[in-house]
Amino acid sequence: MTSFINKDFMLSSKTARELYHEHAEGKPIIDYHCHLVPQQIAENIQFRDITQLWLVDGHYGDHYKWRAMRGNGVSEDYITGGKHDSWETFQKWAETVPYTMRNPLYHWTHLELSRVFGIDKLLSPATARDIYEECNAKLATEEFRGQALIRKFGVEVVCTTDDPADDLRYHKAILDKPFGTKILPAWRPDKAMAIENPEAYIAYIEKLGEAAGMEIRSYADLREALARRRAFFASMGCKLSDHGLDTFHSALYTESEVEKAFKKVLKGKYLDHDEAEKFRSAFLHDEAVADAESGWVQQFHVGAIRSNNTAMFNSVGPDTGYDAIHDLPMAEAGHRFFDRLTLEGRLAKTILYCLNPKDNETLITMAYTFNDGTCPGKMQFGSGWWFLDQESGMRKQINDLSVLGLLSRFVGMLTDSRSFISYPRHEYFRRILCDVIGADVEAGKLPASEMERIAQMVEDISYNNAKAYFEF
Amino acid sequence: MTSFINKDFMLSSKTARELYHEHAEGKPIIDYHCHLVPQQIAENIQFRDITQLWLVDGHYGDHYKWRAMRGNGVSEDYITGGKHDSWETFQKWAETVPYTMRNPLYHWTHLELSRVFGIDKLLSPATARDIYEECNAKLATEEFRGQALIRKFGVEVVCTTDDPADDLRYHKAILDKPFGTKILPAWRPDKAMAIENPEAYIAYIEKLGEAAGMEIRSYADLREALARRRAFFASMGCKLSDHGLDTFHSALYTESEVEKAFKKVLKGKYLDHDEAEKFRSAFLHDEAVADAESGWVQQFHVGAIRSNNTAMFNSVGPDTGYDAIHDLPMAEAGHRFFDRLTLEGRLAKTILYCLNPKDNETLITMAYTFNDGTCPGKMQFGSGWWFLDQESGMRKQINDLSVLGLLSRFVGMLTDSRSFISYPRHEYFRRILCDVIGADVEAGKLPASEMERIAQMVEDISYNNAKAYFEF
Amino acid sequence: MTSFINKDFMLSSKTARELYHEHAEGKPIIDYHCHLVPQQIAENIQFRDITQLWLVDGHYGDHYKWRAMRGNGVSEDYITGGKHDSWETFQKWAETVPYTMRNPLYHWTHLELSRVFGIDKLLSPATARDIYEECNAKLATEEFRGQALIRKFGVEVVCTTDDPADDLRYHKAILDKPFGTKILPAWRPDKAMAIENPEAYIAYIEKLGEAAGMEIRSYADLREALARRRAFFASMGCKLSDHGLDTFHSALYTESEVEKAFKKVLKGKYLDHDEAEKFRSAFLHDEAVADAESGWVQQFHVGAIRSNNTAMFNSVGPDTGYDAIHDLPMAEAGHRFFDRLTLEGRLAKTILYCLNPKDNETLITMAYTFNDGTCPGKMQFGSGWWFLDQESGMRKQINDLSVLGLLSRFVGMLTDSRSFISYPRHEYFRRILCDVIGADVEAGKLPASEMERIAQMVEDISYNNAKAYFEF
Repeated sequence: MTSFINKDFMLSSKTARELYHEHAEGKPIIDYHCHLVPQQIAENIQFRDITQLWLVDGHYGDHYKWRAMRGNGVSEDYITGGKHDSWETFQKWAETVPYTMRNPLYHWTHLELSRVFGIDKLLSPATARDIYEECNAKLATEEFRGQALIRKFGVEVVCTTDDPADDLRYHKAILDKPFGTKILPAWRPDKAMAIENPEAYIAYIEKLGEAAGMEIRSYADLREALARRRAFFASMGCKLSDHGLDTFHSALYTESEVEKAFKKVLKGKYLDHDEAEKFRSAFLHDEAVADAESGWVQQFHVGAIRSNNTAMFNSVGPDTGYDAIHDLPMAEAGHRFFDRLTLEGRLAKTILYCLNPKDNETLITMAYTFNDGTCPGKMQFGSGWWFLDQESGMRKQINDLSVLGLLSRFVGMLTDSRSFISYPRHEYFRRILCDVIGADVEAGKLPASEMERIAQMVEDISYNNAKAYFEF
Repeated sequence: MTSFINKDFMLSSKTARELYHEHAEGKPIIDYHCHLVPQQIAENIQFRDITQLWLVDGHYGDHYKWRAMRGNGVSEDYITGGKHDSWETFQKWAETVPYTMRNPLYHWTHLELSRVFGIDKLLSPATARDIYEECNAKLATEEFRGQALIRKFGVEVVCTTDDPADDLRYHKAILDKPFGTKILPAWRPDKAMAIENPEAYIAYIEKLGEAAGMEIRSYADLREALARRRAFFASMGCKLSDHGLDTFHSALYTESEVEKAFKKVLKGKYLDHDEAEKFRSAFLHDEAVADAESGWVQQFHVGAIRSNNTAMFNSVGPDTGYDAIHDLPMAEAGHRFFDRLTLEGRLAKTILYCLNPKDNETLITMAYTFNDGTCPGKMQFGSGWWFLDQESGMRKQINDLSVLGLLSRFVGMLTDSRSFISYPRHEYFRRILCDVIGADVEAGKLPASEMERIAQMVEDISYNNAKAYFEF
Repeated sequence: MTSFINKDFMLSSKTARELYHEHAEGKPIIDYHCHLVPQQIAENIQFRDITQLWLVDGHYGDHYKWRAMRGNGVSEDYITGGKHDSWETFQKWAETVPYTMRNPLYHWTHLELSRVFGIDKLLSPATARDIYEECNAKLATEEFRGQALIRKFGVEVVCTTDDPADDLRYHKAILDKPFGTKILPAWRPDKAMAIENPEAYIAYIEKLGEAAGMEIRSYADLREALARRRAFFASMGCKLSDHGLDTFHSALYTESEVEKAFKKVLKGKYLDHDEAEKFRSAFLHDEAVADAESGWVQQFHVGAIRSNNTAMFNSVGPDTGYDAIHDLPMAEAGHRFFDRLTLEGRLAKTILYCLNPKDNETLITMAYTFNDGTCPGKMQFGSGWWFLDQESGMRKQINDLSVLGLLSRFVGMLTDSRSFISYPRHEYFRRILCDVIGADVEAGKLPASEMERIAQMVEDISYNNAKAYFEF
């Protein structure tokens, strides 16, 4: 019997198979947005075991798997509870895996076992012990340390996700001791905008001020501090910014209103809705202007509603599997936001990612309203993100972008992951991309006489477009 | 020529056919949510004719068919107008049927003719008279009375939908004279929340007070009256509650605000928007707490906009085919609602049903944010409902649940119908489920080596999951 | 090698091919909504070259192509910039075409080359010069003048889109010198509702008053002026109205509030949100009542957000490729709007078109809530529009209408275009329609024994339904 993750996995037509094997499979990876931890890269992490790599690492871990385990009736003791040992936690995951059929986890799990560990068995209670031991034995070797895992997948560039207050010491360490993959910081100033919680905000502003070597007493100071940090990030090779948003913010405001709101938060007071909107609108606009001036690409991840389970937030904190898809309107505020930047002539290259698939059409037509012909694909609609980073989400992203924009100019896949072994997702994406395009060719919706051009499109989306767009 | 509704109807692959015939077809039905009329069950209704059973029964009838007939240009005289006899109304329906091709009614109609009456002909003006007479002749026999129809489809449990003020006398009658299928009440307190219309509300509150043996003068009294009725419902075997909502309600409120609002309505006054929101938020929360304490499963049917055609409402009342799909936001209020219950440790098992397919992803990720590992599939995303209870709605529900949650833990199909012959919808659902899964196996997206596990999943969704989840 | 746009393009099954070639292909076209310029029809335009016809004609042109070119990195100089000659602009388009694979432009472009010009080559830089010259040579002949192009595609009726202030002189000219296709005006009073911009509104009202032979000083005057123009339009054969809306408007208002709002605008003042809503609600309602009284069909195009790029609006004006898909709620206001008309017994035949595909289900169920049985398909859900006028948009429109309404009663495709050579879109739509229905037959979802009825449905949607519905 052929293995599950075989040579032609997800490739349902001859054309799809040719496109993938000849034009996508061998291309290097440009991972322009992920959450790998720079320290773990710099220290060339050696994983204790597969549980640490895959499931739980202190307060962190794969919250996709956690959600599935909770949904399958696994007690939190085995997940973030820390009451059980590595093997027991792994065992609970192995029990859950057969119940994840049709969920992307079923594919990711076996792709990673196959591509990273060369294990072809399906994970279940029956195979759990063997797989656990084989993985752990391999993880104890040099080829399974962090840097080797990245090299194994032909990753040319990795952009991590970093706070402006970060000293980037681990990026420096990597620069001092390079290992073949370029590791660059990316600018994510979400905390500098998080005025919802004055107490936490004040603490953050203090930290940011220290990093910038100045005291931050006004919004003007905040801009100055961010400018200093931005210059430092640029000097370290940063080329992208990123914002995690519920929706866009583009209220009208005056400078004095923003100053007043900022100072109110610094006094520990909560802003009302309008004050907060004005602050956020100013902050996002000023960041976007700075991106244009820096020549960076700006990214917007819109549509999440986060930390919705307060009980669990109180016990295990953010990013632990209690976030969800939001349903706020996007069109009006988003258009106003980009319109103003266009009027001012300060619109950076931009990638929009959305979490609610109902917003795909809104965001693609928004993006394409601001292309100005200065470069191909200036305004991008990004790859299926988070909950949508799976087969149907990817197909919808590819199809919606195709009919409302130019698929051929798409900068393609990224991992958006904090795991060292998420790189097979690029393979998964490329297989699906080739399957979609191959099906069109075989149905006569794309001309078979144009295979050269079609193959070029596959190569471009897999690699060349990102290479040209980001100019790392 | 094979018949239209043949053995392999809707089953497009060999694997689909095997899964259906060997693992789904024979399973009993647990109809955990429907609108069958207890009196009709208790009295073992004998239908006058197919028109009464299928089309119009006094003020009631199949409003799906009514909408189609109106859309096809049939005068209301033949529908709720009552100006025509049974045969003429049936004839108008027979004229409409060929125009319903690609609408679920075309499938339902012929599934019901085939499975209930053993009639293989397609309904049209040419066949109308024969079918009318054959159906009517059968309906005059014992095997076509209400209870026999339920038994015919192997229904183990039926949960009806009952108002808290209902004395459940027909449930008692059935208990006294059981016929093989367990008929249980379910708790639907929509009228106790319907403060929009003070006049109707006051009348209802009086009725509820009588049922509870007390006078209701305050919101606290209302809670007490509902608690008494709830205890009575529980004693009659009730295990589920249900709410029909436009969206979730979770405004902040104080007890005194809610008392004030309630008393204002009791004085016949309209509440303003904020007062109404506070009342609804309190009511829904208190009901949810009571569900947790009762150990019941709570259901939320969200996303309808009802009784939108005032002219027809005035002449024929509610539930007559003038409802539609709403487009209110869900995420913020919904998360706050379940978050509070989780914080209080009082979250019952929950099923969320949505009417607007654009909300699927929002509701599934919301549900999975509150799984707590206490049982498999505690938070459910329910089957395609009402307008979505058809092939594309079912496929979308199955696919969206698959990629964002655990399909394997899904409690499956229900009829949600007031008809005694809607049970073939379970067959329809199971065929589609097997078709979806079979296609995945044949495309190599599920491993063919795991057919045992895959078959188990089909059996679980068809029957075992509901059995374990509801504990009837 | 077969050509790309071959006989069986988009027809993936035998049944689809039979349905298309025998029942759809030969049917005439009723183009009940388009933006052809009456003057160009009356003057039987001879196109300078393919660039004028396809790309840029003064301030006008195909903004779908413009968006694609901008997204592909083409400088505005070549588009609306006017700094380059016809050939250079065409060349830039030819360079862009290979990058539009999977976008509808790739299909439209080659369909038009094939069907209009008999050119089977694919457009690319390599073929650009030949194609440019061949098209231009043909455009210089009599058979490629405006009227001949319309005749070539068997168009029986064309409804243009006209402002109430228009004197319809070109419609008169055509009536005086008919050429075989009936050219009728349609009523689009958007400017009479556009109170957002008082200055432009005042100028428009003056123009409208002149056309109506009266001064407009009050809202009552506006109604009177529109009534006069409406009578004139009716005398010229007008049978349809049309509104381009962001969403529906149905606020409560009094006559005096509306008068006050109108007079405020006439004084050059901006209305606040509530005043504007009241005005729009009154205006739309009064128009709808007039439509019912005129016996016209009313159309609503909802869901666009327009002129979002102010910088480009300032330089090149509206309808230049800077519009997008909006995401406002529709359900509540829309239902209230049609409910009131129904209560008053003044609901005209209605077609709803939506731009955001997430609204399909909302609008279809809304439409079907107001069918009153007075004619088949009174309330229509219109064809995929603008951004949705492409394969996936059409499939979704067809499928959503099928499961929530009666596909069989659908009045079918329209061009909605200002181009003389968009008529192959009818072919494209019919191919997709036949492909969808053919697939259902071959999968046993429609009975193969009913091919006569199924073929009738295809003929009806292609032609007969529109013929009966509009009664031109």
